[in-house]
Amino acid sequence: MHAQPPNPAPPATRGRPSFDAAFRAELDALFAWRRDVRHFRRESLAPGALDELLGLAIRAPSVGLSQPWRFVRVGDVVRRAAVRAIFEHCNADALARQTEERAGLYARLKLAGLDDAPEQLAVFVEPEPEVGHGLGRATMPEAVVYSAVMAIHTLWLAAAARGIGVGWVSILDPQAVNAALDVPARWRLVGYLCIGYPAEPSDIPELERTGWEHRRPVSDCRIER
Amino acid sequence: MHAQPPNPAPPATRGRPSFDAAFRAELDALFAWRRDVRHFRRESLAPGALDELLGLAIRAPSVGLSQPWRFVRVGDVVRRAAVRAIFEHCNADALARQTEERAGLYARLKLAGLDDAPEQLAVFVEPEPEVGHGLGRATMPEAVVYSAVMAIHTLWLAAAARGIGVGWVSILDPQAVNAALDVPARWRLVGYLCIGYPAEPSDIPELERTGWEHRRPVSDCRIER
Repeated sequence: MHAQPPNPAPPATRGRPSFDAAFRAELDALFAWRRDVRHFRRESLAPGALDELLGLAIRAPSVGLSQPWRFVRVGDVVRRAAVRAIFEHCNADALARQTEERAGLYARLKLAGLDDAPEQLAVFVEPEPEVGHGLGRATMPEAVVYSAVMAIHTLWLAAAARGIGVGWVSILDPQAVNAALDVPARWRLVGYLCIGYPAEPSDIPELERTGWEHRRPVSDCRIER
Repeated sequence: MHAQPPNPAPPATRGRPSFDAAFRAELDALFAWRRDVRHFRRESLAPGALDELLGLAIRAPSVGLSQPWRFVRVGDVVRRAAVRAIFEHCNADALARQTEERAGLYARLKLAGLDDAPEQLAVFVEPEPEVGHGLGRATMPEAVVYSAVMAIHTLWLAAAARGIGVGWVSILDPQAVNAALDVPARWRLVGYLCIGYPAEPSDIPELERTGWEHRRPVSDCRIER
């Protein structure tokens, strides 16, 4: 366990930023301002912006460096309409599950930017990637999925730092989305992202603003053992 | 779907940082320098550092604002030893699954900072949180787990910006960890984190440095539909 790696690198501090207090303060603000955006302006992203975000997303951690994320940029209008129909079907089911009191509020929340966002990105995971040789996922195979989640989160933060909004649509039937997008059946949908310039910035989650939920303190979710 | 929220906030740009090019460059470097740290110095974290990180972690997105993350700070030496024993057992199994060629390399990788890291944090998810009222997770209940993954990733990035290293141990039997830490059986282990000051910084993943895997380009994981 304590052996040195076979090819130790030279001390790799070259080029490492200082990450000073000013940067940390802005990073903390980024965490606070990153929002699940549902109201988008319809204008296109700046040229190259999506690829820049993807280039950052793949810097996310992945178990065994397995890099199991698969990104599908959905541009075809027929496929977009198919995904929208899946959402509408699932959303109707979700509405029916809510109590009457909440259903009105739920209905008023605009849960998807599917109509307005200029970019749509389906993020899948390859559950059995050859890359990484299985390292670290014998006992917790779901760690592969978590890698794709962190790629989405990286993209989300990078986007927020560029004034680009991301909305994560989870009210979808995953297998129906695989079929609609003609991707391998073994790929597992992790998230369907709407991406574009937000109609309004806010540091208060929409669900909190509209009275759906409020933020709990750390003391509610932290114990010692 | 297009109705306004019942209590629209005033334009909330007050206090929003500019997130200029200099910040974005440093953020991108943070993504590159955030590492899965396995070699820790033994010194304690600065007072309050862990709570500061937890305060940031809970700014992560969560489906329906359900905030399902549960953090367990593991300080007790007996419980730490129990987790270490679970790791050793699972690691031996994992070694046996590797081909002979790779097993030697695998054995030389120091896969856990369990012996040296001054802080250990088990992160669980409450799979059926009352908070959030089920919003957004009827069709993809795993979105609740993804929220906890993003809390870990937020903590990881915030730590890296403070010169604090995080190592994610996934070679564990989750149910055995629940028992060792005496937490509710319904809680699901998402990650077991070793936290402390890293022995050496590097922008190259250890698995890449040691020849385990290499980074693939975006073109390997991106398609259009």
